[in-house]
Amino acid sequence: MEATTGARVPPKLTGRGQATRARILEHAADLIYAKGVHATNNEQLRRAAGVSGSQLNHYFPTKESLVLAVIAWQAERVLAFHRSERFTGFDSLDGFREWADYYTAYERAYHEGCSLGSLASEIIKTDLDVHEELAGAFDQWRDIFRDGLLQMQRLGRLNADADPARLTNLLLSAYQGGMLLAQIARDVTPLKDALSAAIDYLQTFTTSHETDAPQATGPFQ
Amino acid sequence: MEATTGARVPPKLTGRGQATRARILEHAADLIYAKGVHATNNEQLRRAAGVSGSQLNHYFPTKESLVLAVIAWQAERVLAFHRSERFTGFDSLDGFREWADYYTAYERAYHEGCSLGSLASEIIKTDLDVHEELAGAFDQWRDIFRDGLLQMQRLGRLNADADPARLTNLLLSAYQGGMLLAQIARDVTPLKDALSAAIDYLQTFTTSHETDAPQATGPFQ
Repeated sequence: MEATTGARVPPKLTGRGQATRARILEHAADLIYAKGVHATNNEQLRRAAGVSGSQLNHYFPTKESLVLAVIAWQAERVLAFHRSERFTGFDSLDGFREWADYYTAYERAYHEGCSLGSLASEIIKTDLDVHEELAGAFDQWRDIFRDGLLQMQRLGRLNADADPARLTNLLLSAYQGGMLLAQIARDVTPLKDALSAAIDYLQTFTTSHETDAPQATGPFQ
Repeated sequence: MEATTGARVPPKLTGRGQATRARILEHAADLIYAKGVHATNNEQLRRAAGVSGSQLNHYFPTKESLVLAVIAWQAERVLAFHRSERFTGFDSLDGFREWADYYTAYERAYHEGCSLGSLASEIIKTDLDVHEELAGAFDQWRDIFRDGLLQMQRLGRLNADADPARLTNLLLSAYQGGMLLAQIARDVTPLKDALSAAIDYLQTFTTSHETDAPQATGPFQ
């Protein structure tokens, strides 16, 4: 991702150029998130971001280049959130519970769904050649959980026979699927159930050392 | 669902009328599934189904009425599949394993994703007033799993302290999320991992009676 991020913000852009590019991107991300890739057009984007057609074309000459940049934008937000200190690198069961609590602590938390999963489920159907970028973003998300579980094993908090990659796929699937079901039902319960059950399954692999983990703190605890 | 199905196929239609309606619906379902709701227009649908504009308008006067019928169409297929004999009403662990095997036994099984989940993730973003129908379809799907788990409890195969509704939300979320992740990664592993882990979690609630369950049979065993 680092490599593609470098490619995405051409170093030749001035400070003002970078700000304009960022403004276009922010509005594109919002529009695509709210309406979908197909329902978003240049006209809407120009108006929302307050830029001319030639400016838009300068920064994003094709729809593909714009969607690629939006994927990177949403991915960076999701990944930065998961790397934030509150989850302590997901090196304990509490980190995962804190994460689940964030999305289920209040009824409307599911309201907008997962920005990246929602984007992914749309893009899968388009002809846009952006699959590699999308898969890369999810690989990095997966790495955050898997690295946390590997660290739990190193710290003796997780049994050696637990499979971090497999548990990661359950946790991420429970989140993505639970978010979709919660949006369909307009009720947080499916997401709450799926995440708590997935984490309870993870707990069946923890050792007694897990209880030595520091308690997570924060407003969502 | 029974009630709305009745409303969807007006009893006044002749045999030929019903066949035409079904043909339009089948092509609409295919188009929407392949391209999405936004990218599907009347012109494409008329050509695919070989009907005139006035015929199309006669059966489905609005986009909403068409999308409602497509939801019902996809829901009926998914529900009929889950109600088929091979899963024996999901009254044993084997029924769930048979179900997971169906989607993960070969590499490309995830290729097209879940027809209903994929439709749902699109519709959530539209202004179409079809949320109730969509939520109803998923409620029925949930009922199939939950009824199976309740039956397992009655048969003494599942502990009394297991929560069928919560386990159902995990299973269905693991399926929907795993399907999305498999499509993104173009690799069946995330789905395989998520389903097998969710079912292994279910197994932690089973009793020794579960081993008395008849073995599921079939080509995917």
